Amino acid sequence: MTAYRAAYRTASVRPSETAAVTRASIDLNADLGEGFGRWRLTEDAELLSVVTSANVACGFHAGDAVTMRRVCRLAAERSVRIGAQVSYRDLAGFGRRSMEVPGEELAAEIAYQIGALQIFARAAGSRVSYVKPHGALYNRVVHDEEQAAAVVEGVLLSGERLPLLGLPGSRLHTLAEEAGLPVVAEAFADRGYTADGRLVPRREEGAVITDPAAVVERSVGMARFGTVAAHSGEPVPVRARSLCLHGDTPGAVSLARRVRRELESVGVRVEPFV
Amino acid sequence: MTAYRAAYRTASVRPSETAAVTRASIDLNADLGEGFGRWRLTEDAELLSVVTSANVACGFHAGDAVTMRRVCRLAAERSVRIGAQVSYRDLAGFGRRSMEVPGEELAAEIAYQIGALQIFARAAGSRVSYVKPHGALYNRVVHDEEQAAAVVEGVLLSGERLPLLGLPGSRLHTLAEEAGLPVVAEAFADRGYTADGRLVPRREEGAVITDPAAVVERSVGMARFGTVAAHSGEPVPVRARSLCLHGDTPGAVSLARRVRRELESVGVRVEPFV
Amino acid sequence: MTAYRAAYRTASVRPSETAAVTRASIDLNADLGEGFGRWRLTEDAELLSVVTSANVACGFHAGDAVTMRRVCRLAAERSVRIGAQVSYRDLAGFGRRSMEVPGEELAAEIAYQIGALQIFARAAGSRVSYVKPHGALYNRVVHDEEQAAAVVEGVLLSGERLPLLGLPGSRLHTLAEEAGLPVVAEAFADRGYTADGRLVPRREEGAVITDPAAVVERSVGMARFGTVAAHSGEPVPVRARSLCLHGDTPGAVSLARRVRRELESVGVRVEPFV
Amino acid sequence: MTAYRAAYRTASVRPSETAAVTRASIDLNADLGEGFGRWRLTEDAELLSVVTSANVACGFHAGDAVTMRRVCRLAAERSVRIGAQVSYRDLAGFGRRSMEVPGEELAAEIAYQIGALQIFARAAGSRVSYVKPHGALYNRVVHDEEQAAAVVEGVLLSGERLPLLGLPGSRLHTLAEEAGLPVVAEAFADRGYTADGRLVPRREEGAVITDPAAVVERSVGMARFGTVAAHSGEPVPVRARSLCLHGDTPGAVSLARRVRRELESVGVRVEPFV
Repeated sequence: MTAYRAAYRTASVRPSETAAVTRASIDLNADLGEGFGRWRLTEDAELLSVVTSANVACGFHAGDAVTMRRVCRLAAERSVRIGAQVSYRDLAGFGRRSMEVPGEELAAEIAYQIGALQIFARAAGSRVSYVKPHGALYNRVVHDEEQAAAVVEGVLLSGERLPLLGLPGSRLHTLAEEAGLPVVAEAFADRGYTADGRLVPRREEGAVITDPAAVVERSVGMARFGTVAAHSGEPVPVRARSLCLHGDTPGAVSLARRVRRELESVGVRVEPFV
Repeated sequence: MTAYRAAYRTASVRPSETAAVTRASIDLNADLGEGFGRWRLTEDAELLSVVTSANVACGFHAGDAVTMRRVCRLAAERSVRIGAQVSYRDLAGFGRRSMEVPGEELAAEIAYQIGALQIFARAAGSRVSYVKPHGALYNRVVHDEEQAAAVVEGVLLSGERLPLLGLPGSRLHTLAEEAGLPVVAEAFADRGYTADGRLVPRREEGAVITDPAAVVERSVGMARFGTVAAHSGEPVPVRARSLCLHGDTPGAVSLARRVRRELESVGVRVEPFV
Repeated sequence: MTAYRAAYRTASVRPSETAAVTRASIDLNADLGEGFGRWRLTEDAELLSVVTSANVACGFHAGDAVTMRRVCRLAAERSVRIGAQVSYRDLAGFGRRSMEVPGEELAAEIAYQIGALQIFARAAGSRVSYVKPHGALYNRVVHDEEQAAAVVEGVLLSGERLPLLGLPGSRLHTLAEEAGLPVVAEAFADRGYTADGRLVPRREEGAVITDPAAVVERSVGMARFGTVAAHSGEPVPVRARSLCLHGDTPGAVSLARRVRRELESVGVRVEPFV
Repeated sequence: MTAYRAAYRTASVRPSETAAVTRASIDLNADLGEGFGRWRLTEDAELLSVVTSANVACGFHAGDAVTMRRVCRLAAERSVRIGAQVSYRDLAGFGRRSMEVPGEELAAEIAYQIGALQIFARAAGSRVSYVKPHGALYNRVVHDEEQAAAVVEGVLLSGERLPLLGLPGSRLHTLAEEAGLPVVAEAFADRGYTADGRLVPRREEGAVITDPAAVVERSVGMARFGTVAAHSGEPVPVRARSLCLHGDTPGAVSLARRVRRELESVGVRVEPFV
């Protein structure tokens, strides 16, 4: 962790040399409502006082109807944007197991989840403002043509031009743009990046940043300068309109609060991307 | 069966003595899309050329997303109304096992299903036009206060004044009306009625009418004169704006066609109730 | 709570007047493995160092295969008996919603769960030693003839004379005995009892004892003297070969440890009932 | 189709030139019990009067507990061997969607399914005699090291040396043999083979043989001479102790009967491999 912090500091003390201060505002998004029935995972109420965009589980990897309704109410009260966190149908695997779902099935299942969430979002006086794939599907649509196209098709079924929140440069983003849908790039303050700006694979060393101070510093660096210290130490550009915070780890809420506080203290406006 | 037909005839040859010809039109509804994944049950395409209202399974007792999408498309093409056939969450029991679902859970699950179907209905250029509970839930909300109220609450979450299709006199209908929702009464041409106008319980003799000719005649009697021959032989009034046809039995499609043809031949317009 | 403790003390200081010291040993059982996939609920490893019988969830209300295997291994290592905690098929409701499952279906589903657990128990060098219904099914088979008979039939399908752990006087116990199956009575140290020895219904005041000291004292009273202070204050006899400890509440593990320590300190042997 | 039949005839009229008559007996296996709740797929009773080995669905891709129990009873009455048809957990996809299930999870899920079926097999006076992966899992363990190893581990958890029925040369068979488990090779009379003895991929022309007469002839050729006409026309050796018949297509039962009759008429004994 220290290596990261040192590297980041090297980068951040000389912002003028690496990048102009480019961003006056950033969105914070987190996965919410990821319990199911008797089981709870995310501290929804607490996180909803920190983030500006809530990726709400829609029942396929997590998320029962009561929780969806409650999270939508709380989000609407706090003007937090509601996003459909769509997934493979896989409660047992929490949507973390890649599946060979034919495009036709996947498109329809994406739409189904958006529709189910939409009723709760509207009942709360809000609406589904964006879509973000979850877990294995998130990773798969970075490169899988058929499934990325199916997610786009599923979103189009909603009849609204819902932005797709995800990894910049992914096939999902490319196909979404070709279909006329807005895309929103996100970055991860608690994930390591390679020198060419990609995420360090989870199985490799440096994939996850666990030091809270480093996460806070990286958040600020990403939001203010659009850069992050790569595994190798050098600053790499990271295009991101939103930062993803994780809500299912111990200390997640206090870390999220700290990130937000620090961002605001250096003059970054924390606000939704839509 | 012969008793029924004789009774009906007695009633129908003397319409003026029993009831004025009250109805110029009737709606025909049937359960559709009741497969799941690999499994099929209802002959959707065929039935959609006969009925005027399609009760589409929404994934809780049956109905996968691909099927929901396809049925909505076909229904919209043929101007068949799309209804949300909402159910307990019970794929293994096909929604036929009564469940003690707390009101808060049930309301949210009803809304979830309506929302999921809505996206496919709208994508097809139509909309969800009504709601009809399925199976054990249908029977339960005839008398169960908490669950009937939960279904009404679930429908209200949709933000639309969706009519509730069901049994006249049920708690569901009473509570729906109190909440300002329209109600639509339906009758069953293939079910026996008691002298006081209620369905013969399924475990009793005469509960189900299997003779196709009797079903057709009863349909006509219900549509034209608002009466049906009770188990005891006498004509009883049956208020019904819609007739429910069953789609999951052998010969269901040809029987449905015959019912429609006969209705039209005697001058009854077959048209949606909304 | 104080009323309970006072009442218990009244009873326990004069054991000779209420009951002879009848029990030299008691079994402690708890529900374990009640997570599913990503979700955890019970502190399995910790509880397995306290209890002598583990009611292992079998996948219908909770319990994935990995968890079942792990719990069986840990239980076997510690000579904790393995019981099949069978349930309605209801992950979304955690098996807490009563269901009208026809006897034939319920019997087969009970057997299915026992069989699934048996393979992990045997692989761990142990075996399924008993069966205990969970949640709504537990409550229902106290009085429901058809479902109680179905549970017995399901157990008989296993080909072994597995004891049924449950409420004394329940229909389940009566039918099990008639079928030649052993029954084991359990009591709840954290539940209130009425003057005639039944559980105070959950919706009534005094249903749940939350004061740890009271729970400990009641455990000792039940184990040593076979009595517990009723809601009204008077001691009532409680026949129980096993005490049920709850594992899904905060502080559950430390309370369980305290109960066991106290039981042993007063000379009660804590040991499995089989 | 004609090409196949001609090719087969060329091969079969000159058996001495291609292969000695090597087999006096063959097993016939089919997938059974592949309904779920209200849905039916396979004509179980009819097929059980034809096949000698029943691959019984265990609840993960299909197969409810009532059906498992009934199929086991019927199989036991007719001395048909009972095999566990294990699958990914995927009711919505009927187990046909490949999934990245970690080895630890897959092994436990395989064991779970075997255990669940075992109780019904034993209750019927029989036992689980073998294991056969279903659908996408079947295809995946042909080459996927981790998943093949997981299936073997799952089978070993049963504590019995259960044979694995599958494709000869698959990783599953190799790993099973290394673990000391018997393997049984099967062939498909209704699938095309390439010149090097592999199945024609489903998406290519000639993958599926639909002409009943060709299926019958290929069955006989495989059983008597251990050869089948490849897509290219030439006879290729096919090692198979069992022929897989499909039970979920129209005419499946009559075709299965015809295959069996023809095999017996040319002197091949149709009998279980165990």
